[in-house]
Amino acid sequence: MRILGIDPGSRLTGYGVIEESPRGFQYIASGSIRVTAEYFPDRLKQIFKGLLEVVERYQPEQMAIEQVFMHINADSALKLGQARGAAICAVQAAGLPVFEYSAKQVKQAVVGKGNAAKSQVQHMVKILLNIQGELQIDASDALGICLCHAHYQQTALRLQKGLGK
Amino acid sequence: MRILGIDPGSRLTGYGVIEESPRGFQYIASGSIRVTAEYFPDRLKQIFKGLLEVVERYQPEQMAIEQVFMHINADSALKLGQARGAAICAVQAAGLPVFEYSAKQVKQAVVGKGNAAKSQVQHMVKILLNIQGELQIDASDALGICLCHAHYQQTALRLQKGLGK
Repeated sequence: MRILGIDPGSRLTGYGVIEESPRGFQYIASGSIRVTAEYFPDRLKQIFKGLLEVVERYQPEQMAIEQVFMHINADSALKLGQARGAAICAVQAAGLPVFEYSAKQVKQAVVGKGNAAKSQVQHMVKILLNIQGELQIDASDALGICLCHAHYQQTALRLQKGLGK
Repeated sequence: MRILGIDPGSRLTGYGVIEESPRGFQYIASGSIRVTAEYFPDRLKQIFKGLLEVVERYQPEQMAIEQVFMHINADSALKLGQARGAAICAVQAAGLPVFEYSAKQVKQAVVGKGNAAKSQVQHMVKILLNIQGELQIDASDALGICLCHAHYQQTALRLQKGLGK
């Protein structure tokens, strides 16, 4: 199964794509959609179109996204909310189901500790997906969400098969 | 020209459609998209799809939306932001240009006073569009945004024609 992970922002939306197979995870792609327009509706359009292109190119089957961390002010929350709304609508318009995970769930799944630092998540993402060289923080966050979703899907599958004990 | 006005919210998204002609404004339709889903991405999908249906049914050529009033907390701002992102992306996906106006601009255009009360806006919307009977507040806000956009468009047109003085 191919998973798309997204880390939305009003200026930069990170994405990552991994493939999950019986042999493990495989890194497919990662990057970010840089929003350049000044007029806010145009910025949302860039996110929406950019993600439709990512879905078109890499053909993921499911999308995972992080629930929002609330220690931000109302102005930032509104901007982030709109970017997030555009991102979710784009992948839904492309027919993908959306799964949400908290930051704690992502850290727990990737590092094994719910309170792990961002740098630890990035480190583990590179090891688990066998990525050499540089990896931008938005892309590594998006790949971390992919891995978290894959982890929860595998657990659900094991439980369905009665191997959960 | 046919104008769609939108007043987005995470639970209720009001819309209004008016037709602008040389003889004045004509009320076409108004109503609201009620979001019933519990899972947040599903709620955004309902807004997105609901607005695509409104555009499909009434065939507006332009969309106007109110800029957000910032005296809300971060949690509300995030929810409203996502609803707004979904609404803007839906009409953009349908090919409509989006115009934003501040609450002050809407009140000034409809009532003639930037600090008018909501009830005054509702009253004037009913008079200007010759609406008898009940009009829900979300729908009347959306129709007020339509009227504001029509007003600004007419002013721009007059200026273009050199009759602005």
